[in-house]
Amino acid sequence: MENHIDENEKTSSVFSEAELEYIAPRSHKTGPSLLSRLGNRLRCSGQMAKSLLFKFIPILYWLPRYPFKEWLLGDIISGLSVGIIQLPQGLAYALLAGVPPVFGLYSSFYPVFIYSIFGTSRHISAGTFAVISVMVGSVTESLVPNDTLVVTTNESLSDTGGERVAVAASLTFLVGIFQILLGLVQFGFVVTYLSEPLIRGYTTAAAIHVTVSQIKSIFGVSITQRSHALSLIYTIVEICSKLPQTNIASLITGLIAIGVLFIVKYLNEKYYSKIRIPIPMELITLIVATGISYGVNLNETYGVDIVGTIPVGMKAPVLPRSDLFPKVVGNAFAIAVVVYAFTISLAKMFAAKHGYTVDNNQELIALGLSNFVGGFFSCFTIGTAMSRSLVQESTGGNSQVAGVVSCLVILVIILKAGELFETLPKAILAAVVVVNLKGIFKQFLDIPMLWRTNRIDLLVWLVTFAATILLNLDIGLGVSVAFSIITIIFRTQLPHYSVLGQVSNTDIYRDVARYAQAKEIPGIKIFQSSCTLYFANADLYANAVKSMSGLEVDKLIAMKKKAMKKQKQMEEKNEKLKKKENDQGEGAQGGGGGPHPSFRVDMPLLALHITRNGLPSAARTNYEVIEEAKQGFLGNGNIFHSLILDLSTVNFLDTVSVKILKNIFRDFTEIDVTVYIAGCHAMVLEQLEKANFFSKTITKGQFFSSIKDAVTHILNTQSLTPEQRNEIFASTKL
Amino acid sequence: MENHIDENEKTSSVFSEAELEYIAPRSHKTGPSLLSRLGNRLRCSGQMAKSLLFKFIPILYWLPRYPFKEWLLGDIISGLSVGIIQLPQGLAYALLAGVPPVFGLYSSFYPVFIYSIFGTSRHISAGTFAVISVMVGSVTESLVPNDTLVVTTNESLSDTGGERVAVAASLTFLVGIFQILLGLVQFGFVVTYLSEPLIRGYTTAAAIHVTVSQIKSIFGVSITQRSHALSLIYTIVEICSKLPQTNIASLITGLIAIGVLFIVKYLNEKYYSKIRIPIPMELITLIVATGISYGVNLNETYGVDIVGTIPVGMKAPVLPRSDLFPKVVGNAFAIAVVVYAFTISLAKMFAAKHGYTVDNNQELIALGLSNFVGGFFSCFTIGTAMSRSLVQESTGGNSQVAGVVSCLVILVIILKAGELFETLPKAILAAVVVVNLKGIFKQFLDIPMLWRTNRIDLLVWLVTFAATILLNLDIGLGVSVAFSIITIIFRTQLPHYSVLGQVSNTDIYRDVARYAQAKEIPGIKIFQSSCTLYFANADLYANAVKSMSGLEVDKLIAMKKKAMKKQKQMEEKNEKLKKKENDQGEGAQGGGGGPHPSFRVDMPLLALHITRNGLPSAARTNYEVIEEAKQGFLGNGNIFHSLILDLSTVNFLDTVSVKILKNIFRDFTEIDVTVYIAGCHAMVLEQLEKANFFSKTITKGQFFSSIKDAVTHILNTQSLTPEQRNEIFASTKL
Repeated sequence: MENHIDENEKTSSVFSEAELEYIAPRSHKTGPSLLSRLGNRLRCSGQMAKSLLFKFIPILYWLPRYPFKEWLLGDIISGLSVGIIQLPQGLAYALLAGVPPVFGLYSSFYPVFIYSIFGTSRHISAGTFAVISVMVGSVTESLVPNDTLVVTTNESLSDTGGERVAVAASLTFLVGIFQILLGLVQFGFVVTYLSEPLIRGYTTAAAIHVTVSQIKSIFGVSITQRSHALSLIYTIVEICSKLPQTNIASLITGLIAIGVLFIVKYLNEKYYSKIRIPIPMELITLIVATGISYGVNLNETYGVDIVGTIPVGMKAPVLPRSDLFPKVVGNAFAIAVVVYAFTISLAKMFAAKHGYTVDNNQELIALGLSNFVGGFFSCFTIGTAMSRSLVQESTGGNSQVAGVVSCLVILVIILKAGELFETLPKAILAAVVVVNLKGIFKQFLDIPMLWRTNRIDLLVWLVTFAATILLNLDIGLGVSVAFSIITIIFRTQLPHYSVLGQVSNTDIYRDVARYAQAKEIPGIKIFQSSCTLYFANADLYANAVKSMSGLEVDKLIAMKKKAMKKQKQMEEKNEKLKKKENDQGEGAQGGGGGPHPSFRVDMPLLALHITRNGLPSAARTNYEVIEEAKQGFLGNGNIFHSLILDLSTVNFLDTVSVKILKNIFRDFTEIDVTVYIAGCHAMVLEQLEKANFFSKTITKGQFFSSIKDAVTHILNTQSLTPEQRNEIFASTKL
Repeated sequence: MENHIDENEKTSSVFSEAELEYIAPRSHKTGPSLLSRLGNRLRCSGQMAKSLLFKFIPILYWLPRYPFKEWLLGDIISGLSVGIIQLPQGLAYALLAGVPPVFGLYSSFYPVFIYSIFGTSRHISAGTFAVISVMVGSVTESLVPNDTLVVTTNESLSDTGGERVAVAASLTFLVGIFQILLGLVQFGFVVTYLSEPLIRGYTTAAAIHVTVSQIKSIFGVSITQRSHALSLIYTIVEICSKLPQTNIASLITGLIAIGVLFIVKYLNEKYYSKIRIPIPMELITLIVATGISYGVNLNETYGVDIVGTIPVGMKAPVLPRSDLFPKVVGNAFAIAVVVYAFTISLAKMFAAKHGYTVDNNQELIALGLSNFVGGFFSCFTIGTAMSRSLVQESTGGNSQVAGVVSCLVILVIILKAGELFETLPKAILAAVVVVNLKGIFKQFLDIPMLWRTNRIDLLVWLVTFAATILLNLDIGLGVSVAFSIITIIFRTQLPHYSVLGQVSNTDIYRDVARYAQAKEIPGIKIFQSSCTLYFANADLYANAVKSMSGLEVDKLIAMKKKAMKKQKQMEEKNEKLKKKENDQGEGAQGGGGGPHPSFRVDMPLLALHITRNGLPSAARTNYEVIEEAKQGFLGNGNIFHSLILDLSTVNFLDTVSVKILKNIFRDFTEIDVTVYIAGCHAMVLEQLEKANFFSKTITKGQFFSSIKDAVTHILNTQSLTPEQRNEIFASTKL
């Protein structure tokens, strides 16, 4: 019976064998026998080739393991839903990219298919994406500027339209190359420079660019296309000046479409839990609008701009034009990174939600291959649209199969139904674009949120937004990345410096200025900086240590130096006098005393045990001079003898900071304050060693792993009397 | 008698009253009576005005207190020595700046005099400086390009020479304005961006620029002047191509001068301790060479280029030409910062050596006023030459009086002796320039030193050097500063991650991979990053935590999610079955059992106290599933229950890193590992609070001030049995 249950358990286990292998391929570690290890090694090379293949062509791995019964239905429904959205988005975003609408359909087919084969994310919907499309558009429009895109016959495609398509395809090809290269050299990490506030600020600005570029379609006016700095401002000004020329029919069409789409989008969201599969309102709008447009003949009667000829059937692949490469290479790199940044963040989000992992570098390669292949088929660059991915996931999509299904939908349109949409007004497509930006515009809410939580990140957001609005999407991105790197300097340039005190009867040390319970230990100053120490704040650190120590360190040192000089001069004088006296004595044997009694005192350089008033000043030791001056500065009875620098916040040390630390040791040693280091991390200690920090005067004995240890050490050695310390001082210093 | 000694002490004290006041003006703090405080307040406004005056015009403070008897002689000797060096350097550096030599003399007079009044450093020698002169030269030569500087008559000065002088003066004026402004807004800190390796790499490259620009004078060939990127390379190529046209007389003159100057410089350094005042070999060379040149008529006989007319007497001040301002404003800012960087580093070095302080912002103002005034008197920009400052200090200079004396020397030359140097060959001046660069060229030794001590600083050095060589002094500086800021990313982007273990019987925790004594505490992982956590390394951090935890965290979560799903499905099935059974039972009362025994077990979602083999798998709790999987991954008997993140190296948190920390808490909580934070600094804790980090699942109770405290807490709560923990788990989770 037990056996039976065991058996039973095995088959009805929550994990199938394959799944377990998928989930824990590294769990074989636990002690295999020598023989089996030998066998393993033999099988190893074959397995490695297989796992490499699985790594680079994930479909080979997941398709044979695809749980048809459980996943297929969901994937088909999801694929159909996504395909239905891809259609209007593809047409609309093609306008953003500055190419005829049909290329949006191509872009929704070839690259998406390739992604399904190579991608590792099971829920993102690869395809056209507004932000990327508008980035592509800024390139095509700057290289092929005149606005003659109203393609009415198949031939005129070879004019501006054709040229733009070539630019877009070359750009896309290069984007693919960059992504594949970045993936192969495992440089997926470049995306980390695009921090979240940066990306959100950037997309918000991109959405504004997109909206402005669509306003002209909605108002039915034609606008000079620009892609220089401040072009957005010029365009807005031009649109305003051309408002009187508005095509009322176009405007009404657009506004109605926007209204309907917004309402349905809202209803879709509100009743999502009930209907599960959203109403494909975009498709319905397209069909209805095309029908009305055809029936009323909107184009000829009211001058409403329509989509125009959509060639039926596939096109043969064309080599991307290499003469365009040098002109688009910079933008290609920027776009490659942005595409990846969006995709990976979405992919990770879904992976976390559904409990699987995505392979960063494989994602790069998959996107790269998609765009690379797309480049041959006159596609523009694709990415991953958040809204569409959410539809794919929420309608029950389980795997990349949904993507394949959505491709097939597009394929059918390309092959059969494309021409049906020829009378579709462009204003409808503009409406589709604008409504789809709703989610991005919500990101303006980041501003109050970041204001409350992190103002420097807010600054990054705002600077990115402003730079992208004013300098356009390419240069704006560069400026934003540079700025977000500089914020590291902002955040660490002006650290918070604090003097720590012991929280009574604990080993905890806290800022005395903030915690009333924290009390300074008499004679010991514990100093902490909130940030690492490097060239930009090293000087500040040194000044803060000196000023927070409560001593005018530099002046004390000056005093000491002066005192030593005077003392030396006096000694010399004394020597001379003595010599003279001796000479006189030799001559006159015990003649009159020297010119002044003080000069007759025979004194060693550091006469110990001499009270202040008992002897003239020259006899006072340096030690006393300093201690006295310190008393004057501190104004209390405690002698400040030890300084502890808590270096736990230090991440690394450059030559400047090592020098500053050396100077602190030198200066405080000069005024008889011993410096100790606490909490120095192993890496930093190594850097100090390399930088020849340690010497006769700075030893590792002054380094402690914690403040507590340093304090304990100091208190132990400070149990000596002042005289004993004086002795130590005399024997070691000068 | 006692009284007498006291009296005596007072007068023969090591510090005079005035000195004490100077040294410790802030030591009045100690308890004055109410009355005296009132009096103080009344006197306060007057005193404040006085101290402000003293601050902005330091000479008013120090001159009345000047110890004539002790310092005057030293200052005069030092001033004479410096003046004698200023003369040849002024003439020579004028050539670097691209203006006729006499303007070098002006630049060694007016600004130096102004500096003596406003400067706070007592030992630096303000005046012409090779690096700054060549920066000025690159501006004058780019704005007034054609090389017709061989000024032989007074009139031709108004041509290129005059134009260049106007450019240099306008530039200098703007430099002055920038420095004054920076000083007034207390922006002296901008100089901290010029880290030491940057400055040293920069000056080394500048020295190469200077040398190349002087080679033409030594070889006596004329070279097209360039100031674009890579101009240095082009110039070297042109010099090489023109070598056949070398003027042998000029070359011999130059080489002899270099030889003599080098030898005397060497002797001066070697026998410095004996002779104290260095041999003024530059002056001697100048005089001898002028004599020979005049006697042999080098210019006409051998075609050796000579200095030419030096107008005698002063020139009336001229307003700087404001039409040139827009053209030089960028360079003016760069030069303003570089001048200040050099000056303040030298000033601080001497101040530290002699035990006084310099006022950063006052130095900026002093330099600014010097250049501002210089701009009216056709001077080019001045800075501080290290070599001359060392002479000033070593020949006994004690104060700014030495500077005044050196001015007077130059004044005499300007008024009386200038014309004597008219036949001086330019090759001699070139030799003076080159020999004075010796110290800077020694900086090439930084390369092996930095290779040993700090390679990233070496990179900064090399990049600065290369950028400055290739892109010239202005753009090169910008690129270098940008690069040195980016190194902060390099240094923190790839932190060293370590798992810490306890060093036996201590509170010290160290990297287990490095320290054999450090042992991990069973069940607890302590994780530390060597660097702060921010957008560029946040992802890496999360991955490192997960991989170093020894668990396939993501896969465990996936397993858990799957298990939960399966469990839910089974439950639903069971529910149905039961319902059916009940229905059947109601119908047939105790009919045949369900289709499979496993589905008949009535089980709660989290059945406790169920052993693994005792019941079918669906009855296993999530907790068990995870613990079991964890066993598989860890391969040892210990259950990993606690993760401690040591955040002591964290300096600040941005939104990205807060999110990553949140994710770590979420993920590890998911697999039943409790996360604790240790060593989080107060500032960081504040940022976490602001960022809404804390919630029901992440509480401040998980934050401990040290690793030790966290470990103690964990061990105390972990004394519970697995069942108890299971209970806690069941009661709090799901």
